[in-house]
Amino acid sequence: MHYDHAGIAIDDAADLAALYGDLFGLEVVHEEEFDGMRVVFLDCGDGYFELLEPLEADGTIARYLENNGAGIHHLALATDDLEGALETVRDHDVALIDEEPRPGAWGHSVAFLHPKDTGGILIELVEH
Amino acid sequence: MHYDHAGIAIDDAADLAALYGDLFGLEVVHEEEFDGMRVVFLDCGDGYFELLEPLEADGTIARYLENNGAGIHHLALATDDLEGALETVRDHDVALIDEEPRPGAWGHSVAFLHPKDTGGILIELVEH
Repeated sequence: MHYDHAGIAIDDAADLAALYGDLFGLEVVHEEEFDGMRVVFLDCGDGYFELLEPLEADGTIARYLENNGAGIHHLALATDDLEGALETVRDHDVALIDEEPRPGAWGHSVAFLHPKDTGGILIELVEH
Repeated sequence: MHYDHAGIAIDDAADLAALYGDLFGLEVVHEEEFDGMRVVFLDCGDGYFELLEPLEADGTIARYLENNGAGIHHLALATDDLEGALETVRDHDVALIDEEPRPGAWGHSVAFLHPKDTGGILIELVEH
């Protein structure tokens, strides 16, 4: 597995994308509305930053922003075999938020692990 | 600039390194005591996870853990020209935590930007 992206919860994804373009030269490589969010991927050369802006008041990211303000919401690792990776995770008694791969942003297949069993860090596994 | 690492604040870096080795096949590529912390780098193929375990009660990471519990503390972008990158950042009126590059873990040169001017996200710039 290898680093895929850091998911960043933010009130205004376009603003942050413009700022990080100016400051760091990061460019937008993909943008879509997905699952009640505006999702913007910035190309970090090795992997991405995934900016997550809530478009609805009652979603996960909206609640995260209410409770924490802007922040680094999760880390995603890419795999070529998401089903196999979930098998390995289950074998170690790690709880899954997504028991099976589900469609994620950018047409990828994703599954989140429960942070209670991954050291308090929200980890996403993603297969492109 | 490109993704270098995600800094993870954690009570026990060795435990988390072992867990992420078992779950994700990530391997420890560097480990040291630095600035009152145990710092463990996990190889993510593209960049790293940097595990930060406080060894003293009064440091930044110890306070972070007290206030937040384990979490994703910062994101680091690598540059070949840290001085130039800081010039660009200053030109955009972004406040710096480190006005000049300072020695970081693994012999790298680093500077942190103030999150109030980077969308609430703590960003580190690093030159290897």
